Amino acid sequence: MRIEVVTIGDELLLGFTIDTNAAHLARQLAAVGVEIIRRTTCGDTAESIAAAVGEALERADGVITTGGLGPTSDDLTKPAIAALFGRGMTLDEEHLAWMRDRWATRWPERPMPEANVQQAMVPEGARKLENRHGSAPGIFLEDARGRWVAMLPGVPREMRGMLGDTLLPLIRERLGDVDRVVRSTTLRTTGVAESLVADRIETIEGGVGDVSLAYLPNVDGVDLRLTVRDLPPREADARLAAAAERVRGVMGAAIYGEGEDDLAAVVLEACRARGLMLAVAESCTGGMLGARLTAIPGSSDVVCGGVIAYADAVKRSLLDVPEALLLAHGAVSEPVVRAMATGARARLDVGAALAITGVAGPGGGTAAKPVGAVWIALDLEGRVEARALRLWGDRDEVRRRSAQAALELLRRALSPGGNS
Amino acid sequence: MRIEVVTIGDELLLGFTIDTNAAHLARQLAAVGVEIIRRTTCGDTAESIAAAVGEALERADGVITTGGLGPTSDDLTKPAIAALFGRGMTLDEEHLAWMRDRWATRWPERPMPEANVQQAMVPEGARKLENRHGSAPGIFLEDARGRWVAMLPGVPREMRGMLGDTLLPLIRERLGDVDRVVRSTTLRTTGVAESLVADRIETIEGGVGDVSLAYLPNVDGVDLRLTVRDLPPREADARLAAAAERVRGVMGAAIYGEGEDDLAAVVLEACRARGLMLAVAESCTGGMLGARLTAIPGSSDVVCGGVIAYADAVKRSLLDVPEALLLAHGAVSEPVVRAMATGARARLDVGAALAITGVAGPGGGTAAKPVGAVWIALDLEGRVEARALRLWGDRDEVRRRSAQAALELLRRALSPGGNS
Repeated sequence: MRIEVVTIGDELLLGFTIDTNAAHLARQLAAVGVEIIRRTTCGDTAESIAAAVGEALERADGVITTGGLGPTSDDLTKPAIAALFGRGMTLDEEHLAWMRDRWATRWPERPMPEANVQQAMVPEGARKLENRHGSAPGIFLEDARGRWVAMLPGVPREMRGMLGDTLLPLIRERLGDVDRVVRSTTLRTTGVAESLVADRIETIEGGVGDVSLAYLPNVDGVDLRLTVRDLPPREADARLAAAAERVRGVMGAAIYGEGEDDLAAVVLEACRARGLMLAVAESCTGGMLGARLTAIPGSSDVVCGGVIAYADAVKRSLLDVPEALLLAHGAVSEPVVRAMATGARARLDVGAALAITGVAGPGGGTAAKPVGAVWIALDLEGRVEARALRLWGDRDEVRRRSAQAALELLRRALSPGGNS
Repeated sequence: MRIEVVTIGDELLLGFTIDTNAAHLARQLAAVGVEIIRRTTCGDTAESIAAAVGEALERADGVITTGGLGPTSDDLTKPAIAALFGRGMTLDEEHLAWMRDRWATRWPERPMPEANVQQAMVPEGARKLENRHGSAPGIFLEDARGRWVAMLPGVPREMRGMLGDTLLPLIRERLGDVDRVVRSTTLRTTGVAESLVADRIETIEGGVGDVSLAYLPNVDGVDLRLTVRDLPPREADARLAAAAERVRGVMGAAIYGEGEDDLAAVVLEACRARGLMLAVAESCTGGMLGARLTAIPGSSDVVCGGVIAYADAVKRSLLDVPEALLLAHGAVSEPVVRAMATGARARLDVGAALAITGVAGPGGGTAAKPVGAVWIALDLEGRVEARALRLWGDRDEVRRRSAQAALELLRRALSPGGNS
């Protein structure tokens, strides 16, 4: 099945919105064995929508669009594509009733704007795709030759929900028994430089066979993506698993997860398994590590909280870092980061505390402590371990790499193999 | 001038990399008055590159590509497009010598890999675009009819550098004296629902003329983008300024900035002007407000730090929230949020403190305090102001909206007009 994606909206084309829907669609479709052959972004006018979708249909079996299903005059996806299929538009009374109901429950004091009725208009002969996360239904339209267009909303949350709830099952059903698939898996590593990862991979005897291996360095570390193509499903899975096993063999504990695993979630799980409560003490990251940990639903059974000790006065008053240490070594130093971790553990009365202090830039660097010089520390039940980092990138990258390195310090300390 | 963009790479098409180049290109081109009419993303094969670029050239005067200029076998942009133009490839001896020099300086101990020679191959008759940020030159290729393709690297830093250094000046030169331009400006509002913004805009007498106005709701609020098209530059600027003035007239203090202004930076500036030091006390946001404030370079002259009081024990121990308040009202309540703000101001010894406590979800909601129920408070030199919010969206959105609302509470308190 050859699928193209058309993302619709002047916002996307003008660069005011970064298109994250396209990447999500691609990953989800790849997971069911479908590859997207091309992606197009076009503006909001009916002509540009019809042209982009019409051309895509010439090349593909199916086209998925995002955007242009809202209630405003810019939302022309449905009529433009209906016209392309030679269909008129018709009012879906059932959906309109549902919308009126929904409106009356939420905003009983105001009547529903008439503009919203547009969301209940559907192309003749279309199948509706249920939207459990918003008010515009998705649309599935098919022509006599079996070529189809699926129209999803542009709001990422609604798009993702509808894709998973209704469109992916529909595509899987149409695929039937597939005899050749593409499968891929990603192993996530952190704390090892890309060139050193490559050196280790080269020690795999016989390599990873005909499985392709891509190095994807990013702010969280180096992801290793393994892909097999054009094989029967069972054989594809077997080869992929064998290759992943070989990579695990040489990378060992440097692999913290698979796919889209987040190191913060991995660390929370490891703490939870040991009944360990966690606190943070953050200087240059200013709350980023705490925000990352608490972004995970259910983190409250592990994360107690922490201190954002941006100013030295706060390091003293809320973390009990001795003034003498700050004077003698400066805020970005091993003694201070150790004292921050220990202070946080004591003040928040927890088993584990992570501390970060560094020069995030762009200003504030010196020859001895340049931008990117960061100290991290872990106080785990009284045993304190500190590490010096020399990070690269801009302010945001230095901060994100610092938080990631602090999480990794804790993960390694809690993993059975330790610091392998 | 009609321009299309083609971004090249399996990574983009497969969704493993989010395409940020396309948005950057669009904004930069818009600033010189050029609109992108369509954007295409294709895979790494020569056929798909040639097809995507060839079709784009049928519709446009010029095509800008990103990606596929590197030294590996996947990098086929140059030969694929050369073939499309009926040109051969030729070795650029000058560039090869420069590359060998550069390599010898950086890695004297290793010879340059022969694969890198590919980066010095250029299509016959092409113009090189200098790359001051990497080793692959960009390529500018033009046919007899004056249609052109500019090939830029895929690495964002290199692409951005080359665009600004060489391609934009070239495009400006080809545009000559432009007699018609597109200009736009964005006014950023927060804390006012989209429908209420629309109600206020409708009170503008005579509207905003032939200036188009787009409502762009997002997690930070509602941005209002004004655009004029197809006017002489001076007239475009004048009409845009007049329209922006009218919008300002009805939106008043709800507008916190323009373009890509960040509310955190606006708030820091307002504090700085008053010599006010700031602290935060965060429960459900877990450090996100602190992270946002300290993301701004130079924030240390305003931001002192704060307490991540995720657990109630921390609200008591580090913010001095009385246990009786927690027991009587629960953590998500007006008395508690007020006590958190006051506690943070006292403990961190600052002039202003912001506090946030709420139910971010997905779990933890009750009938009385559902997901999205959030309290924010400001203690400004002893005067405490609290506000209840009912926010929507997922966990991340509720947290981001909470942080934004807290910043806005402070901005309003410090702005001369106050809470208009």
